[in-house]
Amino acid sequence: VKFSNILIYGLGLMGGSLSLALKNKFPKIKTTGILRSKLSCEEAIQLKIADKILLEEELIKNPKIWYDHDFIIFSLPVDLTCQKILSIPNDYKGFLTDLGSTKSEIITTVDKKFLCMHNYYSSHPMTGSELSGAKNSKANLYDKKLTILTNSKNTSPKAKELIKEFWEELNTYTIEIEPDDHDLILAYLSHSPHILSSIMVNWVNENKKVNYLNSKSPIPISGGGFRDMSRIAGSNPEMWGAIINSNKDQILHSLIDFQKHLNSLISILRDKNENENFWLDYFQKSKISRNEIMKLNENQ
Amino acid sequence: VKFSNILIYGLGLMGGSLSLALKNKFPKIKTTGILRSKLSCEEAIQLKIADKILLEEELIKNPKIWYDHDFIIFSLPVDLTCQKILSIPNDYKGFLTDLGSTKSEIITTVDKKFLCMHNYYSSHPMTGSELSGAKNSKANLYDKKLTILTNSKNTSPKAKELIKEFWEELNTYTIEIEPDDHDLILAYLSHSPHILSSIMVNWVNENKKVNYLNSKSPIPISGGGFRDMSRIAGSNPEMWGAIINSNKDQILHSLIDFQKHLNSLISILRDKNENENFWLDYFQKSKISRNEIMKLNENQ
Repeated sequence: VKFSNILIYGLGLMGGSLSLALKNKFPKIKTTGILRSKLSCEEAIQLKIADKILLEEELIKNPKIWYDHDFIIFSLPVDLTCQKILSIPNDYKGFLTDLGSTKSEIITTVDKKFLCMHNYYSSHPMTGSELSGAKNSKANLYDKKLTILTNSKNTSPKAKELIKEFWEELNTYTIEIEPDDHDLILAYLSHSPHILSSIMVNWVNENKKVNYLNSKSPIPISGGGFRDMSRIAGSNPEMWGAIINSNKDQILHSLIDFQKHLNSLISILRDKNENENFWLDYFQKSKISRNEIMKLNENQ
Repeated sequence: VKFSNILIYGLGLMGGSLSLALKNKFPKIKTTGILRSKLSCEEAIQLKIADKILLEEELIKNPKIWYDHDFIIFSLPVDLTCQKILSIPNDYKGFLTDLGSTKSEIITTVDKKFLCMHNYYSSHPMTGSELSGAKNSKANLYDKKLTILTNSKNTSPKAKELIKEFWEELNTYTIEIEPDDHDLILAYLSHSPHILSSIMVNWVNENKKVNYLNSKSPIPISGGGFRDMSRIAGSNPEMWGAIINSNKDQILHSLIDFQKHLNSLISILRDKNENENFWLDYFQKSKISRNEIMKLNENQ
């Protein structure tokens, strides 16, 4: 890692875990965390999440703090990331990235902010948890995960090189994907699944009989399947609200596509003459699809 | 446990794990496993899954084997369970149950088989895995899980008492639920989620761009959310095909209900004037729903 003073703007689960991972792996690097509320500041100081912890208002009062750091990482919801990108001092010469879950808005903002060659190279580490906040940070959250890198048209080759190296030395795999492609595939692999998981919990909870019998049961009437499928419905609502708002078109397209699959299976269930082996065949095909997506051998 | 010789009809993941749990907790109980193929028989013998392992044809040739056991547990797909119930010797006096995931068909079959008071009390332990077969058996698969018990109109009080006690001594919680209610709530909490998980993997895998970029990536482009939501799509297709076939009406109703939720969110995404806070509110509500269903405190 070629950076020595890293500013992490936002110390939630993602920023906090990144700071812990850096402290663990590269004790010489100094990390500074920026937080918006006094309460979270005190908590982060107590938990020693970063070497230095500042309130956002201190950074606003004293813009020199930007220049004291050679790498800035925005670890904020996508909408706030875009706001903060516009507030970067125009003559800041260090390197910049974010951990945003959608890219089109961020890259549009970067292109608006920097008219010439710049050092902003956007990152999306595919990790997280349904838990949120600095207190749930884990030094190994990034271990062996995938970081998707996305450039704007004026990203410098040096920024690409150093930021890619940064993620690889942090023990993540990397792949570069264009902003629109990123947002399309993430709609399928993350954003729409998040909505589907949320629908599931509301759909179950609003059925009176299910709700009543579940409330009478000594433990939830749920096998591992429902438990795992509903897990992400417990995630941070602010973060996910911002993600959906910043990728509505791709999510809409992917959900319309999902709707077609669902409607066709509902027609099959309605059809009293359905082939007895339909579901066996469908689940066999599904198993193959899952093995392909997750790159598993047949026997795993 | 008041039983001393237990016959487990079917030694897949569920039957195999049950046998291992019995051997662990109650070493005096003798277990016999019945298998349909020679190959699985040899594997089960090698893995010492049960004290005695027999081919199904031996049981058919020698029906005396039924009477050597005081408790019979069918651990088979629902359709086969119904077939085997019809083959129980009419004068068998021991206790009987199954591990079936749907109850209406099984209870209808039990009512057809036994015209007077009988010792059949149906069970549904809410556990399992996307892995299948005796080789994946685990002695702790049932630990602290929920077993739903379902009676037929002529189930004897003694069968209810002993079979409930059996599951509780095996360290599972129990609740009794009527067959139709069981199948309704399981459609919501297990069967339809299984179909939704299967749709998800096919929907993702059939999108060319997603498929292409995922194939280029060093590891799957999937956070924990998609990985967990797609896990059950890798389950045993035979078992799940039989489950869906035996609960089509309830599954159809619940999926039509899910479809309404999905359609309404698609309309929201289509509406360009949508309230900026819609998704924040929706995810806040979802988090509350999930905490209610899973009986979690707000901070868990």
